[in-house]
Amino acid sequence: MASSDHQQSPETTNLRLLLIHRYPRFKTLYLSKLRTRYRILDPLDKSDPSFIPLSNSVRVMLCVGPTPVTLETLDKYPALECVVGTSAGFDHFNLNECRRRGICVTTAGDSFSDDVADFAVGLLIDVVRRVSVADRFVRGGCWPVKGELRPLGSKVGGKRVGIVGLGSIGSRVGKRLEAFGCNIAYTSKRMKPNVSFPFHSNIHDLAISSDVLILCCSLTKETHCIVDKNVLNALGKEGIVINVGRGALVDEKELVQCLKRGEIGGAGLDVYENEPHVPEVLFGLDNVVLSPHVAVLTPESFEALEELFTYNLEAFFSNKPLRAQIEYE
Amino acid sequence: MASSDHQQSPETTNLRLLLIHRYPRFKTLYLSKLRTRYRILDPLDKSDPSFIPLSNSVRVMLCVGPTPVTLETLDKYPALECVVGTSAGFDHFNLNECRRRGICVTTAGDSFSDDVADFAVGLLIDVVRRVSVADRFVRGGCWPVKGELRPLGSKVGGKRVGIVGLGSIGSRVGKRLEAFGCNIAYTSKRMKPNVSFPFHSNIHDLAISSDVLILCCSLTKETHCIVDKNVLNALGKEGIVINVGRGALVDEKELVQCLKRGEIGGAGLDVYENEPHVPEVLFGLDNVVLSPHVAVLTPESFEALEELFTYNLEAFFSNKPLRAQIEYE
Repeated sequence: MASSDHQQSPETTNLRLLLIHRYPRFKTLYLSKLRTRYRILDPLDKSDPSFIPLSNSVRVMLCVGPTPVTLETLDKYPALECVVGTSAGFDHFNLNECRRRGICVTTAGDSFSDDVADFAVGLLIDVVRRVSVADRFVRGGCWPVKGELRPLGSKVGGKRVGIVGLGSIGSRVGKRLEAFGCNIAYTSKRMKPNVSFPFHSNIHDLAISSDVLILCCSLTKETHCIVDKNVLNALGKEGIVINVGRGALVDEKELVQCLKRGEIGGAGLDVYENEPHVPEVLFGLDNVVLSPHVAVLTPESFEALEELFTYNLEAFFSNKPLRAQIEYE
Repeated sequence: MASSDHQQSPETTNLRLLLIHRYPRFKTLYLSKLRTRYRILDPLDKSDPSFIPLSNSVRVMLCVGPTPVTLETLDKYPALECVVGTSAGFDHFNLNECRRRGICVTTAGDSFSDDVADFAVGLLIDVVRRVSVADRFVRGGCWPVKGELRPLGSKVGGKRVGIVGLGSIGSRVGKRLEAFGCNIAYTSKRMKPNVSFPFHSNIHDLAISSDVLILCCSLTKETHCIVDKNVLNALGKEGIVINVGRGALVDEKELVQCLKRGEIGGAGLDVYENEPHVPEVLFGLDNVVLSPHVAVLTPESFEALEELFTYNLEAFFSNKPLRAQIEYE
């Protein structure tokens, strides 16, 4: 197959049209496979002479990662009927506008849920038991010199863990931490049936009775800055924040101040307000563990994701039900 | 109470004798409390004029951490009847000689088991999901420059985890990792009743069918260097070793060579052959996580330990049954 998509060989002209929507920095690992089944339209490929005419008739978009799908984006593709997403979150979609235009939208569904839950627990153990600090201590040659790593970490078991958002990720976090003897409680849009963990109707009440808050919810208007100064105060001096959701779930400036001043105990952060920018003051703190939005990233997750969006693209063209479709409220 | 033990006030002369046995580097956090109940004999306190006469009649020793109790040690205290240990392991005791002399020996029992199991799982997630590497990447300011952290980690769920030693620590590791969807198998001195995990009669067979080996067993003559070159080869290029037992369970030179050459996939090490010495070549490797023998160290564990040894000292003097006593075979 030719590497440039606009060389319309007899094979490609009969293929179904697929629009690829992505930040330039996202490599589309799946393109070569997709080219065998679809005629790819790529707005980043400026040399494709048929891009503009075809963009008027393209019906389905593969949206790579959290690339924003705005009103402006939608205006460029008037025939769009379906956005197949590849991200667990959906804050990058203008859902109101998609609904108004009758465009259905899918997400990565559960493809990443186990990995994100594993990573959340990894961050929690790391912060509580000081694993990364210990690793720095040994690599820095401090052990023979200083003798002991102090202060000690604290016990994981018995910790009161408040899960914010008991969806596919949060429920998996709960299952894992129960096995460590943690006491789980949660807040969520509504109380879940068949869940024995105590429910709190708001995050402030949850924070008051938690040693650790784990943010697993989607970023929406309602959850924007849900962890504010009040919640951090409620969590208290020994409290820990783990964020594997989205950076904007937290008032980042307040969080950084609280960490710096010891007004909360620690944090494990995989996501930030302005990625890839991370507040540099955190780099010098031993009570934080920082990772570059990698909680979802394993080859196994990508395989599950590829299977899901491949299915959804085929389903779209054969009028079958989509999987992991966002239900408009 | 006076800070020097040999000032024999009327109160102290009537107290029961307790020998403290420790490396000079171990601070005895518990001494001030113990002094209210016992007349402390401390061989490191050279200024105690009654040390030598009293050492002939002392009946019980509190052994702090893994301080060796050798034949030579035992010869110094001819009246010794009981060694109250504070360590989960017992490789630092000359047990044959203790048995011959009719000296009973206790350990830390289960006091540390949850913490060690938590830390083992923390090391596993860290190595598999590259948490410490991610933290170094962010702190080093690499994210905005390099864009992506590569290679990716791999999925925790589905990993075949071989537990070496399914005692109080190993069984807790198994329970935790089941909740992540790992497939657990084990080897142990003998097959455990009422355990559903598959049993392998030797570590080599376990390694062949494992992605991760977690060393949770005691160090004995039989387990010394139980992870040798053959076992590492059986584990293979993607295999991971987690050691929260004792450094000498592993042929450290071979392990370091295998890690360096990529002949195994990675390692999470809390213990080493010659602590606090850690082979420096490991400091430059991204496939290892290193911690300074801290898996047992939380304030909660120390409280549980203090309760246990305090009980055992009282039990000794009142002829009650001891807890966590080593049973001679």
